Amino acid sequence: MRIIVTNCNTTGQMTEEIVRGARAAAGPGTTVAGLTPTWGPESAEGWLDSYLSAAAVLDALRTYDGPAYDAVVLAGFGEHGREGVRESVDVPVVDITEAAAHLACLLGRRYGVVTTLDRSCGLIEDSLETAGVARNCAAVVGTGLGVLDLAQDQARTESAFLAAAERAREAGAEVLVLGCAGMTGLHRAVGEKLGMPVVDGVGAAVRLAESLVGLGLTTSRAGGYARPLPKRRVWGRPAG
Amino acid sequence: MRIIVTNCNTTGQMTEEIVRGARAAAGPGTTVAGLTPTWGPESAEGWLDSYLSAAAVLDALRTYDGPAYDAVVLAGFGEHGREGVRESVDVPVVDITEAAAHLACLLGRRYGVVTTLDRSCGLIEDSLETAGVARNCAAVVGTGLGVLDLAQDQARTESAFLAAAERAREAGAEVLVLGCAGMTGLHRAVGEKLGMPVVDGVGAAVRLAESLVGLGLTTSRAGGYARPLPKRRVWGRPAG
Amino acid sequence: MRIIVTNCNTTGQMTEEIVRGARAAAGPGTTVAGLTPTWGPESAEGWLDSYLSAAAVLDALRTYDGPAYDAVVLAGFGEHGREGVRESVDVPVVDITEAAAHLACLLGRRYGVVTTLDRSCGLIEDSLETAGVARNCAAVVGTGLGVLDLAQDQARTESAFLAAAERAREAGAEVLVLGCAGMTGLHRAVGEKLGMPVVDGVGAAVRLAESLVGLGLTTSRAGGYARPLPKRRVWGRPAG
Amino acid sequence: MRIIVTNCNTTGQMTEEIVRGARAAAGPGTTVAGLTPTWGPESAEGWLDSYLSAAAVLDALRTYDGPAYDAVVLAGFGEHGREGVRESVDVPVVDITEAAAHLACLLGRRYGVVTTLDRSCGLIEDSLETAGVARNCAAVVGTGLGVLDLAQDQARTESAFLAAAERAREAGAEVLVLGCAGMTGLHRAVGEKLGMPVVDGVGAAVRLAESLVGLGLTTSRAGGYARPLPKRRVWGRPAG
Amino acid sequence: MRIIVTNCNTTGQMTEEIVRGARAAAGPGTTVAGLTPTWGPESAEGWLDSYLSAAAVLDALRTYDGPAYDAVVLAGFGEHGREGVRESVDVPVVDITEAAAHLACLLGRRYGVVTTLDRSCGLIEDSLETAGVARNCAAVVGTGLGVLDLAQDQARTESAFLAAAERAREAGAEVLVLGCAGMTGLHRAVGEKLGMPVVDGVGAAVRLAESLVGLGLTTSRAGGYARPLPKRRVWGRPAG
Amino acid sequence: MRIIVTNCNTTGQMTEEIVRGARAAAGPGTTVAGLTPTWGPESAEGWLDSYLSAAAVLDALRTYDGPAYDAVVLAGFGEHGREGVRESVDVPVVDITEAAAHLACLLGRRYGVVTTLDRSCGLIEDSLETAGVARNCAAVVGTGLGVLDLAQDQARTESAFLAAAERAREAGAEVLVLGCAGMTGLHRAVGEKLGMPVVDGVGAAVRLAESLVGLGLTTSRAGGYARPLPKRRVWGRPAG
Repeated sequence: MRIIVTNCNTTGQMTEEIVRGARAAAGPGTTVAGLTPTWGPESAEGWLDSYLSAAAVLDALRTYDGPAYDAVVLAGFGEHGREGVRESVDVPVVDITEAAAHLACLLGRRYGVVTTLDRSCGLIEDSLETAGVARNCAAVVGTGLGVLDLAQDQARTESAFLAAAERAREAGAEVLVLGCAGMTGLHRAVGEKLGMPVVDGVGAAVRLAESLVGLGLTTSRAGGYARPLPKRRVWGRPAG
Repeated sequence: MRIIVTNCNTTGQMTEEIVRGARAAAGPGTTVAGLTPTWGPESAEGWLDSYLSAAAVLDALRTYDGPAYDAVVLAGFGEHGREGVRESVDVPVVDITEAAAHLACLLGRRYGVVTTLDRSCGLIEDSLETAGVARNCAAVVGTGLGVLDLAQDQARTESAFLAAAERAREAGAEVLVLGCAGMTGLHRAVGEKLGMPVVDGVGAAVRLAESLVGLGLTTSRAGGYARPLPKRRVWGRPAG
Repeated sequence: MRIIVTNCNTTGQMTEEIVRGARAAAGPGTTVAGLTPTWGPESAEGWLDSYLSAAAVLDALRTYDGPAYDAVVLAGFGEHGREGVRESVDVPVVDITEAAAHLACLLGRRYGVVTTLDRSCGLIEDSLETAGVARNCAAVVGTGLGVLDLAQDQARTESAFLAAAERAREAGAEVLVLGCAGMTGLHRAVGEKLGMPVVDGVGAAVRLAESLVGLGLTTSRAGGYARPLPKRRVWGRPAG
Repeated sequence: MRIIVTNCNTTGQMTEEIVRGARAAAGPGTTVAGLTPTWGPESAEGWLDSYLSAAAVLDALRTYDGPAYDAVVLAGFGEHGREGVRESVDVPVVDITEAAAHLACLLGRRYGVVTTLDRSCGLIEDSLETAGVARNCAAVVGTGLGVLDLAQDQARTESAFLAAAERAREAGAEVLVLGCAGMTGLHRAVGEKLGMPVVDGVGAAVRLAESLVGLGLTTSRAGGYARPLPKRRVWGRPAG
Repeated sequence: MRIIVTNCNTTGQMTEEIVRGARAAAGPGTTVAGLTPTWGPESAEGWLDSYLSAAAVLDALRTYDGPAYDAVVLAGFGEHGREGVRESVDVPVVDITEAAAHLACLLGRRYGVVTTLDRSCGLIEDSLETAGVARNCAAVVGTGLGVLDLAQDQARTESAFLAAAERAREAGAEVLVLGCAGMTGLHRAVGEKLGMPVVDGVGAAVRLAESLVGLGLTTSRAGGYARPLPKRRVWGRPAG
Repeated sequence: MRIIVTNCNTTGQMTEEIVRGARAAAGPGTTVAGLTPTWGPESAEGWLDSYLSAAAVLDALRTYDGPAYDAVVLAGFGEHGREGVRESVDVPVVDITEAAAHLACLLGRRYGVVTTLDRSCGLIEDSLETAGVARNCAAVVGTGLGVLDLAQDQARTESAFLAAAERAREAGAEVLVLGCAGMTGLHRAVGEKLGMPVVDGVGAAVRLAESLVGLGLTTSRAGGYARPLPKRRVWGRPAG
């Protein structure tokens, strides 16, 4: 099985890390390929970035001309676009935001999300709500670190994560969700210290994508996710 | 006061109609200017179109170099992008979806939305939910007509609208909302036949934008709609 | 356009302040007239007062014999009565509670209300809920000051407001709403200190009323707000 | 134990019927006394009536000078006022709307309300919501009969009730609630035909009031239902 | 009238205390009989215990061969089983969890529950939700004391209760509910110190059961609580 | 990896069918073993059965003495017990109800459940609600067929399923969930006819269990699902 994992930003190094995490999580027989949009924001932090990212990811998949794939994982935590990708491709599509929440619901009564900047909390809340999995979310808490800061000082990142996790726990969380694709790997470091399961959305999404493929399930066309209508669409500012 | 009204698609003729409707609704002293994205879909019907449209509208405002303006009206019913525009500009931003719902809540206990294709209903429901005004929405009903079909046969459009409106009324609606910017003008034609107020989002948004400007209010920077962070962003597929 | 602004209590001085605020907020061409009930409570602070006020305001409008008007603004924050007024008059009716919330939703993801006594918080919460705009309300917080205390010591009022506003901000508010008609004017004083938009319900309601009138919209008769049935009604304890 | 049952309208004959129903439901040792407001509407059908009724009922209790009582039952289905009465008296207060819903929840998973005119449905829905018991309400359905029509033609009333009950059942109701104090007695007539329990709010409220008194419980003063503040209040249009 | 009060655990001494509380709360003419399951947990603290208890209580009622009874009170706070008992017996069934919440809603705008161990909070929240009375619940707070610890040191129990009650009050509670059948009696001790009504579920349930019996109401068979289908069922591990 | 799949009833033939479905869905390297409770109901249809089943399944796992296992799948659609099993075992636990809903959310905006008897709909609704996945459930619809009837007449079962599915679709479902473990296999037969994805809970749960094991995740002990406290518990009526 071949899964395309799309980064939501243009930072190739982050795609590599995400792909590393995805591969570590994938079952035997699964091939993971990363896809970095050729345009969009270098990191997605807020609504403007998120909408720009959504269009860029849709374009990257639209113009993808590599080997066929069996599923798509969207590796932008809280970012927009998943419904559009569901319309566009004929294979299962799993967004890491919803994926982490789905698995977290199986592990405890309430889960909390620890993310990067506070400004991203609202996006994540809305994304969980529309995905149908917000009911058991106790809190979405920011660490104050930007997406591209996460990798710079591992000790600082861990410490900020643990502080934010404590706030989520006080709000009732029994399970934690890593609220940024760039946190992949961190769950190993902090899981034991916290005494709570920590769910990484990238790994969760890869496994859910494998599950859907394995069960022969794909997106319903009977309703909101029908194939896009044929029409004239221009993808990005015309040159010149 | 000068209000920019952005069309969510690239069809200039539709921008003109929207601007006509906006001008008819505007108070004295208000100038309305239309803005058509230079890229994006020719009509927004579904999630893919909506996300593409959101980025194109953000880009159109980002690169706008006309006279200064006092407010932005986003004339895409149910389409994405409003939070990103709120981050980006320093003037009030009103989306026609939420605008229509806000006014409809003042006119009856429950309102219904009549829109174009059934595939758009889900987008509209999510948009109302995240705007905080879904509670009093009794139903979102499709007419089965595409965005660009609306203007082609006025009798057919009216008849389809009235049939859908009846379903909304049975679901409890006491007020109707025109669920597409391209329906602007239709409220005059159908209002009397229905015996219910009909709210056009374009007019509603223009008036709400005027209200905010008149009261000296603009988007809060204290939280989710802080100014976008400076970073590298590429708006569309690089040439070459 | 002529707007009647009804005070919810019998304190004429407060009506004057409210009218002053309403006039400051009104657009050009709008005339504002205040209406003070001839009976009811001298201030509305709690459920008993609120229900008494509702009947008195309905009676004041029923027996009003001044010049014709185009809209009614109900200037009692959290107070009952708006649906009854909608049944009774043939022009748009806007309550300052809902009005402030509607505009606040356009300015940030979550808003908070700062009001007078803690005992009023419940009324306000219920009023927002039934108006359909509670979803984005992060908190309703009391200052501990009574309605008629507000005007007595400006410094104390500001300080109490700022402290309560801080609690609303901690609960997630990005926008503040003045939760009492008697606070009109305070938004200028505290807005800058808070770094958040502050919405005054009186101004908001005036602008929304103007908007509805401007758009030719009025209350739906198709459902819950049909005209009251003709029947015998006695308004207040018979003399003797 | 002595319970005051307040009619919400000025029709004394209806008070008598309600008192008859209350007495039939009361336990041994309970005395029921009816109280008819000296002002207000002759029947409460809609928001204007309901607000007028609330003030009149509050006034009737305020000026009541009969024997001491142990509890108050408010016999206006869906009508306003209960929170104000809770502030005003030192004994338990039970509204027939909430009472019927509380007992109905003990009898089936979902209940339905059958009421008089469609225009009353909204009031009832809001009343159940703010009382905290709307969650299990499957539907509120009107019969099309006015309050004072109920007693005129028993066969017509039963037939209209059964038709409305069928709609409630289709919406999921397993228990029915009589949605008007003037329907008291009807539950005997229709219960068997429906094959569902039918809850009369008057009887339910009397029993709940007895329960609270028997358990030594009364309204909390710690919060929203604190005693009304002493102040100047005028109850009705001053003579002159 | 004869009411069976079932303990949810096998500790006979606790049944006796519960029966004592039930008798103190019952009206004249009501006989209370306790029923202790012959199997199940010695105390119910958590999900495993709760499910084991539910089956044991159902079995105890199934095999009960004492005098006929008019109602069943289920005295396990937050424990499962009530819907199953409703299917099984032809008399009204009242669970102390829902009973306390129903009465608490009549006494204040929001209520709080103080229970034993934190691990029980989730069960109680779910039980209130499915009973339809969670809307006005401000908080469910644990004292840290196990069920069988409650009776051991009265001073410690009171002190832990008061501390937990304070947290509930801060969360908005105006009324407190004793969240364990073993707390019956405690409301007298703590009520005055708290200045809030304290509702004991056992007393509440006895009174509600009396109310239903008195009104001639019993569980609906029209839907989810139809009589169990005849089939082969084995109640507990076969001997041998 | 070894997964134990527990039947919720004592019908061994049904366990075999479920195991067959589980094996068909499992990934390579997964061993599936069925577990049939030695006591409980022969089929679970309603609340009494469900609670009896929950205790019997807990007992079956408690006394299981076969080879070690890596996860538990609970194959009773809508049946109780999952939280108790989560407390009891140290491996991931997935209930087929929640599992089907989690995957269904990834395939469409709204899903519907088609189950056996109408009396089971309420259990399923509550189970989805407490699992946190009810938000996107458009309807739970009964076929009118009992659990043990499903296998008897394949044509009748398919026809009843298709009729119920149509009602779910009209309510907004874009994806269907098989609402009974005994329907496993049916998705192949009806999927094409419906033009919608059909999710079988058994397969979904097996895949989710594999996912959790593969990711090294298991139930949180930090809160509601802590290990059961050591205490005296009796599992079924003592002999003699």
